[in-house]
Amino acid sequence: MGKKLTLDEVFDLAKACMLANGCDEANSDAVARTVTNAERDMCLSHGLFRVPGYAGGVKSGVARGTARPVAKRIAPGLIAVDGDGGPAPLAIQTAHEAIIPAVREQGIVAASINDIFHLSALWPEVEPLAEQGIVAMACCVAGSYVAPAGGTKPLFGTNPFAFGWPRKDAPPAVFDQASAAMARGEIQIAQRDGHSVPEGTGIDKDGKPTTDPTAILEGAQLAFGGYKGASLAMMVELLAGALVGGKFSYETSVDVGNGPTLGRHSEVIIAIDPARFGGDGFLDRGEELFDKILSQEGTRLPGERRFNNREITSREGVDVPQSLFDSLLELRG
Amino acid sequence: MGKKLTLDEVFDLAKACMLANGCDEANSDAVARTVTNAERDMCLSHGLFRVPGYAGGVKSGVARGTARPVAKRIAPGLIAVDGDGGPAPLAIQTAHEAIIPAVREQGIVAASINDIFHLSALWPEVEPLAEQGIVAMACCVAGSYVAPAGGTKPLFGTNPFAFGWPRKDAPPAVFDQASAAMARGEIQIAQRDGHSVPEGTGIDKDGKPTTDPTAILEGAQLAFGGYKGASLAMMVELLAGALVGGKFSYETSVDVGNGPTLGRHSEVIIAIDPARFGGDGFLDRGEELFDKILSQEGTRLPGERRFNNREITSREGVDVPQSLFDSLLELRG
Repeated sequence: MGKKLTLDEVFDLAKACMLANGCDEANSDAVARTVTNAERDMCLSHGLFRVPGYAGGVKSGVARGTARPVAKRIAPGLIAVDGDGGPAPLAIQTAHEAIIPAVREQGIVAASINDIFHLSALWPEVEPLAEQGIVAMACCVAGSYVAPAGGTKPLFGTNPFAFGWPRKDAPPAVFDQASAAMARGEIQIAQRDGHSVPEGTGIDKDGKPTTDPTAILEGAQLAFGGYKGASLAMMVELLAGALVGGKFSYETSVDVGNGPTLGRHSEVIIAIDPARFGGDGFLDRGEELFDKILSQEGTRLPGERRFNNREITSREGVDVPQSLFDSLLELRG
Repeated sequence: MGKKLTLDEVFDLAKACMLANGCDEANSDAVARTVTNAERDMCLSHGLFRVPGYAGGVKSGVARGTARPVAKRIAPGLIAVDGDGGPAPLAIQTAHEAIIPAVREQGIVAASINDIFHLSALWPEVEPLAEQGIVAMACCVAGSYVAPAGGTKPLFGTNPFAFGWPRKDAPPAVFDQASAAMARGEIQIAQRDGHSVPEGTGIDKDGKPTTDPTAILEGAQLAFGGYKGASLAMMVELLAGALVGGKFSYETSVDVGNGPTLGRHSEVIIAIDPARFGGDGFLDRGEELFDKILSQEGTRLPGERRFNNREITSREGVDVPQSLFDSLLELRG
């Protein structure tokens, strides 16, 4: 049971909530577009669910609702975007606008995006680039919940890494995955429902392996695939923290009114123009690999589920839980 | 029981084996240096153990022992190294020589290395760059043993990904890890010794999870961390295969006399000059993170074990199994 909304209604509601809480037109538009795209793809945990966090961030002053992000070319291949303390979506849009001409000229560019308030998924960073024929990867720090390899205490963020590959006559292949074995929200749901979680999800506060969600939430999460995932989580800290002058996961946490979340932090996008590298063949070659993957029963390409969901939501709209809808109406005032 | 050799003796033996099998001075030097560095770090599976493969590759004509790799700047930020069909080490050296001045100028560059015969670890691709203050990542395809996410048949290679980060007054932090959950060689050793392997290592030929090494070797290996590792394996195929005009894992396999190995293939290195990005602070910031990691008991930094091994091998030399030593003497003629 909930409220049925069209995607236009999702956008309008999200935008109104941002405007009512001190966000200006440009930032409200950008947040609402990001949120609507998530609802469109049925990524509910990054859709309207995030609006109270974004609005609370602006209202509390953690995020600047009137931010004007600026992109600066600091080297032929490097772009530094100053997010001006605002919600991330406008800064990401600013980064994309700077990356696209630069990467066609250079072949490869990296962009830092500093001083942003980021509560969304990471695929919106790479997918619009892949839609323009650009191969892209992105990473950012996140809540400090994951133990380093061999360690027992939380240190690394859940640190997502995203990758996008342009396809021929099809939406791009895009993955966006946390370095943590399991999303914190899923562990919390298992706790609420009294379920155990798979081995490898986390350790208790003494560093012992456990499948008890409560013990893990009091202890530490583990990276996916053991020490290899922990290496990736460390790499993300180094790239999105040290490389670009950003913060490490353990340095940024705030409460904007609905539990602890990240404060202002940073991210990195690396973009490559494949047309400058391998010639035109890369698109066909990608399809050859995808055909091989899909010829095995049970497989699908990363992002495929989201793209299929678009057909459903564009036709049928989205279901918003009544409690979330009510809280958004209240937020909108 | 085996033969004790100094690192100089390792180098001379490896070089003599290459020279005796049709490899010229420059390529023999480069292969011998790579092999010696692996022995120095006690990476035995990539040390002298690989010389019969390299020598067999050249002798059989799969690899060109007189290759002259050439680096070409194909865009401001892109370098294409034509390996000329030779053993990889000389081409990698050529790539490094082209990358270092280019990345200091551009801030970021990517280099493709095509048409190489690669039997080594991947850390030699990133470590020499990190030693010059350059952040680097590298990946290449490998033997086609790993099933795609949800699939049941081998397709992806074990596809290593390596990352190097320069440190202050210390050897760089470097990891080099396969996308496969377990090295094929380890599964073969478990088979030989009658041990089972951990869950998540692989599936049998019907796609069912198993811990039986024989069933996995007849079935398919799995990526580390399930579908997330499989995403990374796919990314490596796309980057080192499609992006740079190289081959996919499943397209390249030869037998040079000691079992199936890769034929000529490609790899990618991405290098970033952190001094152009975040200023001088990145080194100190990296150390702050490393201090946090190392403050937890049981942790170490990636690469640390190799660096510690150097002190041992420089003092005591290395132990070469008698059977390997004998076969190298035979190879040297």
